[in-house]
Amino acid sequence: MIRTPSVDLARLQSDLAALAEFRDPDSPGWTRRVFSEPYVRSREWVAGRMRDAGLQVRLDAAGNLIGTLAGGGRSALVTGSHTDTVAGGGRFDGPVGVLGAIEVARCIRDSGRSLRHELRVVDFLGEEPNDFGLSCVGSRAVAGTLTADHLGTRDPSGRTLAEALVSAGANPRRIHEAAWAANTVGAFVELHIEQGPVLEHSGVPIGVVSGIAGIERVVATFDGQADHAGTTPMDARHDALCAAADAVLAVERLASEGQGAGVGTAGRIEALPGALNVVPARVQLWAEFRSVDGAWLDSRRRAFEAAVSEAGRKRGVGATVKRLSRTEPVVTSAEVRTAMTEAIGSLGLDYVPLPSGAGHDTVQMSRLGPVGMLFVPSVGGRSHCPEEMTSPEHLEAGVAALLATLLVLDAR
Amino acid sequence: MIRTPSVDLARLQSDLAALAEFRDPDSPGWTRRVFSEPYVRSREWVAGRMRDAGLQVRLDAAGNLIGTLAGGGRSALVTGSHTDTVAGGGRFDGPVGVLGAIEVARCIRDSGRSLRHELRVVDFLGEEPNDFGLSCVGSRAVAGTLTADHLGTRDPSGRTLAEALVSAGANPRRIHEAAWAANTVGAFVELHIEQGPVLEHSGVPIGVVSGIAGIERVVATFDGQADHAGTTPMDARHDALCAAADAVLAVERLASEGQGAGVGTAGRIEALPGALNVVPARVQLWAEFRSVDGAWLDSRRRAFEAAVSEAGRKRGVGATVKRLSRTEPVVTSAEVRTAMTEAIGSLGLDYVPLPSGAGHDTVQMSRLGPVGMLFVPSVGGRSHCPEEMTSPEHLEAGVAALLATLLVLDAR
Repeated sequence: MIRTPSVDLARLQSDLAALAEFRDPDSPGWTRRVFSEPYVRSREWVAGRMRDAGLQVRLDAAGNLIGTLAGGGRSALVTGSHTDTVAGGGRFDGPVGVLGAIEVARCIRDSGRSLRHELRVVDFLGEEPNDFGLSCVGSRAVAGTLTADHLGTRDPSGRTLAEALVSAGANPRRIHEAAWAANTVGAFVELHIEQGPVLEHSGVPIGVVSGIAGIERVVATFDGQADHAGTTPMDARHDALCAAADAVLAVERLASEGQGAGVGTAGRIEALPGALNVVPARVQLWAEFRSVDGAWLDSRRRAFEAAVSEAGRKRGVGATVKRLSRTEPVVTSAEVRTAMTEAIGSLGLDYVPLPSGAGHDTVQMSRLGPVGMLFVPSVGGRSHCPEEMTSPEHLEAGVAALLATLLVLDAR
Repeated sequence: MIRTPSVDLARLQSDLAALAEFRDPDSPGWTRRVFSEPYVRSREWVAGRMRDAGLQVRLDAAGNLIGTLAGGGRSALVTGSHTDTVAGGGRFDGPVGVLGAIEVARCIRDSGRSLRHELRVVDFLGEEPNDFGLSCVGSRAVAGTLTADHLGTRDPSGRTLAEALVSAGANPRRIHEAAWAANTVGAFVELHIEQGPVLEHSGVPIGVVSGIAGIERVVATFDGQADHAGTTPMDARHDALCAAADAVLAVERLASEGQGAGVGTAGRIEALPGALNVVPARVQLWAEFRSVDGAWLDSRRRAFEAAVSEAGRKRGVGATVKRLSRTEPVVTSAEVRTAMTEAIGSLGLDYVPLPSGAGHDTVQMSRLGPVGMLFVPSVGGRSHCPEEMTSPEHLEAGVAALLATLLVLDAR
């Protein structure tokens, strides 16, 4: 059994509270969106906490904040997450994985031990969706998947992503320098809040993530006829909203048939002309399916296409499905999961394996080497809201598990 | 059998074409909305056509254009409709009943006969929905139901309805002078396009309107929970859009069960937050049922409320139904219908009895005396669109039936 230096919960909680104060005073909750003034200021503070933990700090060409603890000659053990939030977000989604990693570095320093691997703590730039329509900006750059097209994307104000990156201290003209060579990463481990209710319902403090769901996103378009709602008999109508209602229920039914294999959501609907006295003529319905099983995603999409087609056919409504995007599932590394379960066992804690329905920087990092994720419980399963909360004992358990996992991996 | 002076189709068509030219050049179709500059100009032209037909013309305090042909001492026979259109509307919805009535007056004048009743031809102000959220403005004033509250309503620019009326030449401070005493109306007959497909499918030129549908309007509100679409298992969701989809299909099913007794439409839906990765938390769905049978309207509303409640209950989603408005059905006068069928028979034409699903100025006029409506076919059942069309032979048949009906009523 590995002797584990102790996590200082008070020190971690103090850091979480201090970071939360960097926020947009005009927005609800703890809002610290990427490229905002509070975000840029907060990262100077994060850099200071990294230095204080004994890490060598640099801001790379993509605006990632990277703190390094020199080790033996082996490939690096990498851990981290992000510190940006959604609008109206909370204090835990992202910061737990960054400030937890800094706490890990402090524990290692305080223990006086030296690692056989270099340790890298990363605060990835802009993981959450932003006004450029791109998430995981920093980790994409590290993985080498941030393209010139991405950099040229404009937000609604007309500013390019490259210009926004400059405002955050990055150097997008040298973006290629932010990419890492795959063989430099021994393992990447991310600590994150679950953002769902499974751990809370299970009553265990830690989740070992089996995989990160892939996402199949589609938009269904229904073209009916804008007839007068008073004068058109029911059997002479071509009601696009009725067809779309069939499709909404198809998403619910098809996802529930999965017995936990995945989820499906119709999250957005637009019906035109939207008048009380006109039969809806055109409806667009956006939907997605998520699963760690790519074949299940394929089968759901095909079944959804068939349901949309039938919903339109029986009402004389044109009905088409367009694929918007497909993200393949990521399976976490068996080697890293084994290190995690060994480490968690050594701490005398319980865990459950579970998939991640949300995307994370880990998805990008999986291109570079073995990856793993640890989840801590979210009270009420809530996230992306001011009420987002993880209890102190679960925070402590999570950071202790992260530290112990890195020590197990270092010992390999 | 009554000797019927002949309708001059070319003269009527020329008037319809001339009126259609008064339109907003910046809007699609034949757009002549109430209070617009083209509308105000067009009514000077309509007044001129009334004078040319031998009518005494006045604009009343509500902006109704009223042309009178003096007759015997009896109560007035009244006919007319409206000349305003919806945005992007057509050339027939409204103008057929006003210009048709002027053609009737010309026929009577040309025949040299004098009537036992005064004949009143009315171009009611603003029958279509407007920016003040009120339809049938002019006929409400005639019926005495236009209130001070109505006059104080503001459009999105902040202008009051009273101010808009002044711009159309009306005198809203004397609005009470526009109201007619009930015993002055012997009968009101309105010629209008059907705005639906029933006459075209039946292959007959004229519909005798049995009643005008009442309207029950409701809004259903579904309060679920905005969970993360990736991390929340299907059985832990409270999806407001799925519940609303059940309600959309309930409207379709409940209205179709009526076997033609009425119609039902869910015309507008709003789902929040409307993000692809968030379970819909709050959905509002606006719906209406229409029927000439008030008891059927009651039963549909109650069944809809039960369906909404069940849709919410099974998903743990709060679900309520609020009544927005209720317009009672209007049954047309048996005496007027009998005069219509006698008149149509004398012309050797076919007709079908049918309900009106749309509201009309006739609804307001029913407060003052016996009312009746004649419908002419709409090609493809289309209306409120540039393609709105009634064929020349159907126009001629409709105006001939209106003239003959008024002569039958005058002979009573």
